[in-house]
Amino acid sequence: MADFSRIALLTDFGASSPYVGQLRLGLAAALPGTAVIELISDLPAFRPDLAAYLLPALVRDLPCGTLYLCVVDPGVGGDRLAIAVEADGNLFIGPDNGLLALVCRSALSCCVYRIDWRPEILSPSFQGRDLFAPVAAALTLGRPLAMTAIAPTSLQGAEWPEDLPKVIYVDSFGNLITGLRAALLQPADSICVKGQQLSRAGTFHEVPLGTAFWYANAFGLVELAVNQGSATLELGLEVGDEIAMSPFPKLISESINE
Amino acid sequence: MADFSRIALLTDFGASSPYVGQLRLGLAAALPGTAVIELISDLPAFRPDLAAYLLPALVRDLPCGTLYLCVVDPGVGGDRLAIAVEADGNLFIGPDNGLLALVCRSALSCCVYRIDWRPEILSPSFQGRDLFAPVAAALTLGRPLAMTAIAPTSLQGAEWPEDLPKVIYVDSFGNLITGLRAALLQPADSICVKGQQLSRAGTFHEVPLGTAFWYANAFGLVELAVNQGSATLELGLEVGDEIAMSPFPKLISESINE
Amino acid sequence: MADFSRIALLTDFGASSPYVGQLRLGLAAALPGTAVIELISDLPAFRPDLAAYLLPALVRDLPCGTLYLCVVDPGVGGDRLAIAVEADGNLFIGPDNGLLALVCRSALSCCVYRIDWRPEILSPSFQGRDLFAPVAAALTLGRPLAMTAIAPTSLQGAEWPEDLPKVIYVDSFGNLITGLRAALLQPADSICVKGQQLSRAGTFHEVPLGTAFWYANAFGLVELAVNQGSATLELGLEVGDEIAMSPFPKLISESINE
Repeated sequence: MADFSRIALLTDFGASSPYVGQLRLGLAAALPGTAVIELISDLPAFRPDLAAYLLPALVRDLPCGTLYLCVVDPGVGGDRLAIAVEADGNLFIGPDNGLLALVCRSALSCCVYRIDWRPEILSPSFQGRDLFAPVAAALTLGRPLAMTAIAPTSLQGAEWPEDLPKVIYVDSFGNLITGLRAALLQPADSICVKGQQLSRAGTFHEVPLGTAFWYANAFGLVELAVNQGSATLELGLEVGDEIAMSPFPKLISESINE
Repeated sequence: MADFSRIALLTDFGASSPYVGQLRLGLAAALPGTAVIELISDLPAFRPDLAAYLLPALVRDLPCGTLYLCVVDPGVGGDRLAIAVEADGNLFIGPDNGLLALVCRSALSCCVYRIDWRPEILSPSFQGRDLFAPVAAALTLGRPLAMTAIAPTSLQGAEWPEDLPKVIYVDSFGNLITGLRAALLQPADSICVKGQQLSRAGTFHEVPLGTAFWYANAFGLVELAVNQGSATLELGLEVGDEIAMSPFPKLISESINE
Repeated sequence: MADFSRIALLTDFGASSPYVGQLRLGLAAALPGTAVIELISDLPAFRPDLAAYLLPALVRDLPCGTLYLCVVDPGVGGDRLAIAVEADGNLFIGPDNGLLALVCRSALSCCVYRIDWRPEILSPSFQGRDLFAPVAAALTLGRPLAMTAIAPTSLQGAEWPEDLPKVIYVDSFGNLITGLRAALLQPADSICVKGQQLSRAGTFHEVPLGTAFWYANAFGLVELAVNQGSATLELGLEVGDEIAMSPFPKLISESINE
């Protein structure tokens, strides 16, 4: 595996939680001098099926050579696998519950490994600290670790569609990020939510204060927003809610239903 | 420009947001070994007119030689300028929407530059990541960058008063920080909010539990607080709400109305 | 005192607050190259009596050689002491209001010092920044500092029981962490809250979705949880609320009442 210059944490642990803090203290002791950065700590709780669509978008424009430690893990302590995904010069570590499915699918090159190594002491509820963080430390240091190459097609979520017409994340402003890649839509397309048609704008200040619209966000995803307002409040939408495009693109329709 | 030993981030991006995380990952790749610290991530959203009054107070007692990357940018993607303000040994980078107006005004020495450089790829909605962070990295590394000196008086907000009798920030305890410098008030002065007169105390434990008061906070600003309670709940005040002093100082009155 | 390789911050300052940011900037200037990590920033506000029980659990499995800067300080500016507690290879700095009482009590070896040094400028409301952080920097650098050894038994909270049958922390998922060490309970024991009996499970996925249970969490404490739900909402419990064990263990009963 490549050398990794920095570690990014992507979790649903919450802001300022002791869970992120414990990960960081363990990593700081194992890897003094390596930058460890919280990329996001409020991924939708218990929802790897939604977070999966945010991950490739989030890392798309970030520098290569990063180890992404990813934990949204409602099945922790059960029999789900622990996996490492080497994709386009980055390494992703996390549970095999679909969380890394879209990172894998959207990569130009991708190798997947089952992590066979287990620590001596492994709490049933916090494997981010006890399993994934030590694995991240070992791989950053280039230490050998028991892993087995497996087929990307064997991963949970390998058959999921490439786009998801749902709200996958609500940011602190109330903007609604969807699982639709913006490149799929034409500027004249609109998004339908609860009987309302939203038109596209280039960015916020192009529409009047308080007006809802959709735009291609800085991660390349379709985002529903309100200029200087909260789309989640104005539109009454939350994480997991469905949206629709108009006209409904054939491409999406097929990949969802096939 | 001076050398900068560390970068501080001041934004309205929200706690644990992916926006701060993306800034940090970009900076970590460009500047390995440079400390990058979130000074504050919950500046009042969309309100550079309020955040402007918090900035000089926040940095007043911090060590010099810091590059402050400041983003409260509701006009992102429009024609507002990007600016750099060198003030008393620190450098501030951000949008020209008033956010840096009070930093500039309160400095003993201050040089202002318009940032002319633009990256090849610039998203219309996230110039914190695409413009301001790369500028911060270049200036930290001492790389030349297309900038033009401009007059401080040409900045947005250059004519704003030195003090603002409004709530400019609510902290996690519910304390209400105002835009009034505490040095303007006498100990016997009181603050009027919604028909209530608040007296001064030196600090929290000097008043009974649950009692509201004002005091000179650790940033040098007038703060409304409740001993072991929430002033925002008790007083029914939020960010942007007006307050009044009693007696109303001539100094403030003039600078506001002139 | 031992050398300390890293500094961890434990506060009730809130996520992304400027108070944590100011601590960090001060420490970054004084200690370039030393890792400073937020272990937790949402300790129960104004409640050192509850936070005290979380501290030893949080640090139990973390690497030694850490300086823990601990601030839950409702009596700031009053006459409470500032103390340093050297316990089992770590150093804890904070106010003498009970916050460090259980760290001290649960240590195999423990030395307590009263911090006599005071800075030239000391704000009455933010001694985390003005007193505790400079003390942390000085001790990390091995600089001499005016301190006096005192008896651990003289600390506030020295007589508190070893376990506390209360909710001491609610995490971002809504899980309820209690002040009871899990090792005190038998697997067949149940926890009583508001007339409801909660049974033990090994971890989340062992119970049906939406079911409340108790389990031994990754810090060694009894935690009340709901599989993929919020225990604080389901059970109607908040920080500080009491819980009961059934059968009520003699050990706890004695230590609480003695």
